[in-house]
Amino acid sequence: MPPAPANLLAGLPPSLPEEMLSEILSRPDLRIERIVSTGHASPPGFWYDQPWDEWVLVLAGAARLRLADEAEDRALTPGDHVLLPAGTRHRVAWTSPDEPTVWLAVHCPPRRDG
Amino acid sequence: MPPAPANLLAGLPPSLPEEMLSEILSRPDLRIERIVSTGHASPPGFWYDQPWDEWVLVLAGAARLRLADEAEDRALTPGDHVLLPAGTRHRVAWTSPDEPTVWLAVHCPPRRDG
Repeated sequence: MPPAPANLLAGLPPSLPEEMLSEILSRPDLRIERIVSTGHASPPGFWYDQPWDEWVLVLAGAARLRLADEAEDRALTPGDHVLLPAGTRHRVAWTSPDEPTVWLAVHCPPRRDG
Repeated sequence: MPPAPANLLAGLPPSLPEEMLSEILSRPDLRIERIVSTGHASPPGFWYDQPWDEWVLVLAGAARLRLADEAEDRALTPGDHVLLPAGTRHRVAWTSPDEPTVWLAVHCPPRRDG
């Protein structure tokens, strides 16, 4: 995964064949990535299901995120953020085709119970 | 510290007596905060000097960050980010008085050598 650029919002490509992932910070128990989507969504029927927690923040663009246990997509615009605890099945239902959508994603160990 | 709002960029106060800190995520080895500055800067002569790493990202506004071992401030606008390894003396030299400056700050253990 290539390193992130100096500015996470500069020089964004208007169109990408696939989502672009850049690593911002990596530690044994922590990974921060930038993801750029240009109209990408999760494949039909595909759900992410991870054994770690993920926190996502939309920095630019627009997206719809679906959690398997919710009836409707969550519409996300810049500044919106979602914590996806480990085991939360989720998928990207839609990202804007008109402008790059930039996500910040933080992956970390699940919260311990109790 | 109060929890972060649903949208990190919405409902920002135009002026604050002190910087506003909101907790977004807290784990034993990880803390993510939102900081809102409205013209605030570090006190003259004050330097942060932390035994943990901090990664900061400017989400809105404008700021100047000074690292003690650099000759000039770094001018930061939305999308700019800086990793401050443990022991990096730094201070906020300036934030815009004209609009809220929103920082995302991630605090994590220092990278292990080797």
